[in-house]
Amino acid sequence: MGLIFALAGGVGAARLLRGLVQVIPPEDLVIVGNTGDDFEVYGLHISPDLDIVMYTLAGIVDEAKGWGVSGDTFNCLDMLGKLGFETWFKLGDRDLAIHIVRTKILEEGMTLSQATAELCKMLGIKARLVPMSNDPVRTKIVSGKLRLEFQEYFVKRGTKDEVTDVLFEGAEKAKPAPGILEAIKEAERVVICPSNPILSIAPILSISMIRDQLRNTDAYVIGVSPIVGGKAIKGPADRIMTSMGLEASAYGVAKYYEDFLDHLVIDKADEHQKDRIKELGVKVTITDTRMKSLEDSIRLARVVMKAQ
Amino acid sequence: MGLIFALAGGVGAARLLRGLVQVIPPEDLVIVGNTGDDFEVYGLHISPDLDIVMYTLAGIVDEAKGWGVSGDTFNCLDMLGKLGFETWFKLGDRDLAIHIVRTKILEEGMTLSQATAELCKMLGIKARLVPMSNDPVRTKIVSGKLRLEFQEYFVKRGTKDEVTDVLFEGAEKAKPAPGILEAIKEAERVVICPSNPILSIAPILSISMIRDQLRNTDAYVIGVSPIVGGKAIKGPADRIMTSMGLEASAYGVAKYYEDFLDHLVIDKADEHQKDRIKELGVKVTITDTRMKSLEDSIRLARVVMKAQ
Repeated sequence: MGLIFALAGGVGAARLLRGLVQVIPPEDLVIVGNTGDDFEVYGLHISPDLDIVMYTLAGIVDEAKGWGVSGDTFNCLDMLGKLGFETWFKLGDRDLAIHIVRTKILEEGMTLSQATAELCKMLGIKARLVPMSNDPVRTKIVSGKLRLEFQEYFVKRGTKDEVTDVLFEGAEKAKPAPGILEAIKEAERVVICPSNPILSIAPILSISMIRDQLRNTDAYVIGVSPIVGGKAIKGPADRIMTSMGLEASAYGVAKYYEDFLDHLVIDKADEHQKDRIKELGVKVTITDTRMKSLEDSIRLARVVMKAQ
Repeated sequence: MGLIFALAGGVGAARLLRGLVQVIPPEDLVIVGNTGDDFEVYGLHISPDLDIVMYTLAGIVDEAKGWGVSGDTFNCLDMLGKLGFETWFKLGDRDLAIHIVRTKILEEGMTLSQATAELCKMLGIKARLVPMSNDPVRTKIVSGKLRLEFQEYFVKRGTKDEVTDVLFEGAEKAKPAPGILEAIKEAERVVICPSNPILSIAPILSISMIRDQLRNTDAYVIGVSPIVGGKAIKGPADRIMTSMGLEASAYGVAKYYEDFLDHLVIDKADEHQKDRIKELGVKVTITDTRMKSLEDSIRLARVVMKAQ
């Protein structure tokens, strides 16, 4: 078995990846994580999507929420609130250790790639997690006349605003983090995890060298649809696809990735979309795509690895 | 009542100061804090003595320990330990909020004076707390051939090493923080808190402009002996005084501050030393100097303010 390259957002991606590392040697897996959601708060560098993947692969994620560290407390945040700071981004005390270490490594002049590799090593993660870029790319949400920071839209305002446009600031200047282009080229299979196409995967694709490499790779590119029966399993993907003029469906996902996608795994609930997707030149596998237990994740990872 | 200027170390100082702010208008109190113990860990700037004073004056100190925040948890530290970091300096989760904010303010290019003023404001402290210098002065402990960082000696190794010398690195270049010299000049009374003379007050005095200003001020300079019956109330002051060739007694304290001290408040247990201290030209008040309750602190503060 050769190299497997995965594009990952947050919770949905992490659930598939925790299965994937049981199905293939984790050392053979290179994951590129979305850093469009990254932000600074209290002087700390937070990478929410990288963290979700790390915590999940390290087995310390809060299973109920899908993010944060299991059994965490929020006493530092409570104190920050008492000092007069905003506390809508829920940073747990254990969680904070990661942000403190990441910030320290960055302050020492190392890159986000290096900081992420260090943290993965400390957490005993054998898969290789790489941020999409060491240059800042920041996802901004446009809602009519409003222009929101990503976390402001996502956490503070709870995704209630209608999204009229999504911008990836810095993308045109950003270079892929070291190793990404080589990994896509060498990969046997590229996996597009079941993440929000517009908020989690598009930031990665906004770095044109990554999208171009995906178009040109010999690897078999297979995605898992995050849309089931017209609804996102978690989060606002369906609403955003609709308001951005896309079809909120497995077909809409296939269409969005059409330029590089070879195969899409869709849910049983979307079996009726099979023929439309095939017309795009994309093969289809139908299975149960919901991942509640680790067994679900392993089963779906096997499907993803076998589909051809 | 005019300005009162206090030189402060950690727990003993904080206990006197919590009484002092009940006895005089807190706005009239300027406290210079020892920053020789400051250090960096996990990229955060920690000022242990400033913190003890702040937490005590804000009414959030852990009363039993005398430092740290009451009811704090240690989950971030626990996680840092799991990531492979040393965790002998006990940073609580609520405590961390202060260090995170201080570090952020310093990173933004402000001084330690400004960061301390901001934190005091956030904590609702009306007395003015000032670090001894905005320049780094670092207390180093020499024990024979060993040369230890202060916190390494004090916390990690638990003061077990015999102290053969104490160095204040950076002192010769350090300038007093803004306002200190003016406050000593304008003060009606200067209070040397019952802190370790060699580890807590000497770092402040190591900035020669401060010591010179104390020698030249018209203010009445009154100290409270931290040594009672030949023993330090807390910490290693007695052992260090002895190994540094000083007498570990109220007399030894008076002798150490002889060049600027007008008056020393000593404990009843040390009444027999009264005459020897007077021979140094230092007046003496005898009282119960132990401060367990807030009432003890207020009573001792009244003695300090009235003695003449």
